[in-house]
Amino acid sequence: MSQCIWRLWGSDCASVARDDEDTFKILIATDIHLGYLEKDAVRGNDTFNTFDEILKCAKQNQVDFILLGGDLFHENKPSRRCLHSCISLLRKYCMGDTPILFDVLSDQAVNFSNSKFPWVNYQDENLNISIPVFSVHGNHDDPTGADGLCALDLLSSAGLVNHFGRSQSVERIEISPVLLQKGSTKLALYGIGSIPDERLYRMFVNNQVTMLRPKEDQDQWFNLFTIHQNRSKHGATNYIPEQFLDDFLDLVVWGHEHECLINPSRNEQRLFYVTQPGSSVATSLSPGEAVKKHIGLLRVKGRKMNLQKIPLHTVRQFFIQDLVLSEHPDLFNPDMPKVNQRVEAFCQEKVEAMIEEAERDRLGNPLTPEKPLIRLRVDYSGGFEAFNATRFSQKFVEQVANPKDVVHFIRQKEYKAKVKGNTHTHTQTIIITFDKPTFSDVQITLLSVCFCCTVQLSLLTEQGMGKAVQEYVDKEEKDAIEELIRYQLEKTQRHLQQRGVLTEEEIDQEVQRRG
Amino acid sequence: MSQCIWRLWGSDCASVARDDEDTFKILIATDIHLGYLEKDAVRGNDTFNTFDEILKCAKQNQVDFILLGGDLFHENKPSRRCLHSCISLLRKYCMGDTPILFDVLSDQAVNFSNSKFPWVNYQDENLNISIPVFSVHGNHDDPTGADGLCALDLLSSAGLVNHFGRSQSVERIEISPVLLQKGSTKLALYGIGSIPDERLYRMFVNNQVTMLRPKEDQDQWFNLFTIHQNRSKHGATNYIPEQFLDDFLDLVVWGHEHECLINPSRNEQRLFYVTQPGSSVATSLSPGEAVKKHIGLLRVKGRKMNLQKIPLHTVRQFFIQDLVLSEHPDLFNPDMPKVNQRVEAFCQEKVEAMIEEAERDRLGNPLTPEKPLIRLRVDYSGGFEAFNATRFSQKFVEQVANPKDVVHFIRQKEYKAKVKGNTHTHTQTIIITFDKPTFSDVQITLLSVCFCCTVQLSLLTEQGMGKAVQEYVDKEEKDAIEELIRYQLEKTQRHLQQRGVLTEEEIDQEVQRRG
Repeated sequence: MSQCIWRLWGSDCASVARDDEDTFKILIATDIHLGYLEKDAVRGNDTFNTFDEILKCAKQNQVDFILLGGDLFHENKPSRRCLHSCISLLRKYCMGDTPILFDVLSDQAVNFSNSKFPWVNYQDENLNISIPVFSVHGNHDDPTGADGLCALDLLSSAGLVNHFGRSQSVERIEISPVLLQKGSTKLALYGIGSIPDERLYRMFVNNQVTMLRPKEDQDQWFNLFTIHQNRSKHGATNYIPEQFLDDFLDLVVWGHEHECLINPSRNEQRLFYVTQPGSSVATSLSPGEAVKKHIGLLRVKGRKMNLQKIPLHTVRQFFIQDLVLSEHPDLFNPDMPKVNQRVEAFCQEKVEAMIEEAERDRLGNPLTPEKPLIRLRVDYSGGFEAFNATRFSQKFVEQVANPKDVVHFIRQKEYKAKVKGNTHTHTQTIIITFDKPTFSDVQITLLSVCFCCTVQLSLLTEQGMGKAVQEYVDKEEKDAIEELIRYQLEKTQRHLQQRGVLTEEEIDQEVQRRG
Repeated sequence: MSQCIWRLWGSDCASVARDDEDTFKILIATDIHLGYLEKDAVRGNDTFNTFDEILKCAKQNQVDFILLGGDLFHENKPSRRCLHSCISLLRKYCMGDTPILFDVLSDQAVNFSNSKFPWVNYQDENLNISIPVFSVHGNHDDPTGADGLCALDLLSSAGLVNHFGRSQSVERIEISPVLLQKGSTKLALYGIGSIPDERLYRMFVNNQVTMLRPKEDQDQWFNLFTIHQNRSKHGATNYIPEQFLDDFLDLVVWGHEHECLINPSRNEQRLFYVTQPGSSVATSLSPGEAVKKHIGLLRVKGRKMNLQKIPLHTVRQFFIQDLVLSEHPDLFNPDMPKVNQRVEAFCQEKVEAMIEEAERDRLGNPLTPEKPLIRLRVDYSGGFEAFNATRFSQKFVEQVANPKDVVHFIRQKEYKAKVKGNTHTHTQTIIITFDKPTFSDVQITLLSVCFCCTVQLSLLTEQGMGKAVQEYVDKEEKDAIEELIRYQLEKTQRHLQQRGVLTEEEIDQEVQRRG
């Protein structure tokens, strides 16, 4: 960090007096995961309701712009309904007559070089934008395919979002900030859209990541950086250590991690602050997701900042508790008669207590959905038996939003490992969702594509198939499998041509011989 | 038709003098099929280039609006690239400062009741629209799924297209026209988005289709109707006879049929005119698609109209010829030695002549793609043998855009039937495209889904599966199969519950018994 003096304002709610012509007001949110479980009868609208709340909040607070930290969409190829809802909400809340009071000073052709309309949407004379949205892409909605397009690019081509932080090269990243000025405050907005952690780690280590800085008045800029990577260590090089980031930064908005740790924490080595807003929807039933969800209202004036936490009211409640059976020898031990029934009854009490707690907690919050998410993690190590978790969960079908997996059995060892890894809890790639009875279409397609390709065609190597299937699952990249098959067929054709095979019958014979 | 007098202007190119403040200028196009063969290395950009040309033409001609007759998209769920290109082109050409000189007099909440923004896009104060686009949906891009959304609705939510002619009921259609006025000219715009022909036929027969008319000044309106249905008879009730349409209409713009018959033809029973613009891309290699492609510039003043044909220059040339072997007894008969080689050599000459014709024809048209589509239909009935069409076609890989199927063998009978049905040639549902070597991903998925569901799960009836698979193929409606499986699983679960099965082991046994 440069040596100039700047500090956090108090964390109390900012007074109106602060909203002057030199103060940027920025709504900060991340990992909205639009479309997550959109087909679930109970939870299907959750992500859309919360996005509505977030945009409404931005409008009510008259922010200068919205900054999103990636994973606006849960699926790489969002459904039509999901795209339609997103477009409609952005048009509803982010267009209008409110004037935009800040300027862009940087070369927008560089900032938005990937766009066919390489300028910030509010400066487009054909669009009446009231709240510009700036977003990097996440790992769920990252660019794929030959064109390198992502879901954000659809919004960007429609003029609804400013997609920044897109790197053109896989070998070297040069981040050219979007330079903004409001009154006397200068804000340099840096960002990197999601990149596989291992690769970005390596690039940082090899000095292949450069953050450009304006030449003039370098110390007058407030440097804001948006990143969508693992913050918690998932392996030696499978995350981005904070100290990799340049010390001239003032604030880092860290996306991808779902636990709300929105209060800025100071990195004592680099002397910048990190805010981790967390997701606005729980996409897994792990402890990190149970932390109350917030978005942030960031004010920046000169080099000073203040981050106000704003609780989200439309977020479905989530309560999680742990029960270690062996820690209650007074209540049950494995040798007791009917110990299973006792355990089940005890679990039922625990769950009911959580449901009651959720009900009390919801009082006075009409926006909060009625059915909470409830999770009881039961450590049954020490000789206990697990009862049928699905049947048990079904008892609460009228009271909870996750009546298929209220209880979850773990063994101590597994449990401890989980607790240890949970510093920044996060669900990395839950693509095959939980709400389907037995088979998801992806699973069926997978199973059967494997069958057809490997057994029937006998054309594909296992390795190639594995890679293509992975692409298929991760990104719904249907083309991955097709392209592999096309490639193999063409290879076969070339092979046949080289052998000088000519008649159809001979081709048939040759293919059969290879099969 | 009402009794007031109106007539066609001469079909000569309209003079500038006609473009006065009372004259609507409407660009008419249909069946643009964006994304058709978009992955083909040669033809991949054809539909986008032609859409670009169409929009550019609209802009150059300073039309009041564009009217599209359906099938703007080839796929029900267009690819990201396809949507992105479409949005970008619409934003590029249809937004800007040109003032819109006509008003909407009808209740827009009725006209666009399906939209979250139920008003014409150019009246939205947040959008600076220079050319409004009005479109009905076609059979390729019709609404599907629980939300009843179609691809046009994405464009409509982004404010780029006005999707009209959407019927809310499957039992009764009441068409409320969009009433437009420019100067003294009043234009009533009617439309029906694509509906299965059999159903719409039945509804017409049962008087369940009503076209509402303005109460006042009824005779002063020019009544324009847009429809996307079979015009040629595909079966007793599998088309819409022109005489089903109300006689108060002045002009019908008929989409869906791909042959360009854009010069208005008079229906002598109903005394209205019908223009069939035809598609702007050949999606099959049938004679109707070989007719030169045009769009129309329609001028309407009072009750008079003029339709100017505008040739499209970016459309890939398509030449088709028929060869009946038995009609050339001087050249070959089945008993000749080496007759096959003779036939093949003769076909080669024919194809080369067509390629040369295409080259000459392309001179001076730099916008026209270099490689034409060439099709030679060979009737080999009378004892001749077909040679290998694929290998033959490959000879022209550097010269034609369809090097996989230049030659096509038919037998006389089949041929005659085809010729008979070709009055208004059209490709009805070519969803599985031609450019893939052997297996498309849809086919693979299909094969394998069938395998998994019917063989492995043993849960689904053949009938149910057939229907779901049809939906899957027609609309890429992935949910169709999933929903069927879910339904069957739930039925199985209910069955098991009714039998009072309780333990997991018993459930397993029961499921195995049923399997």
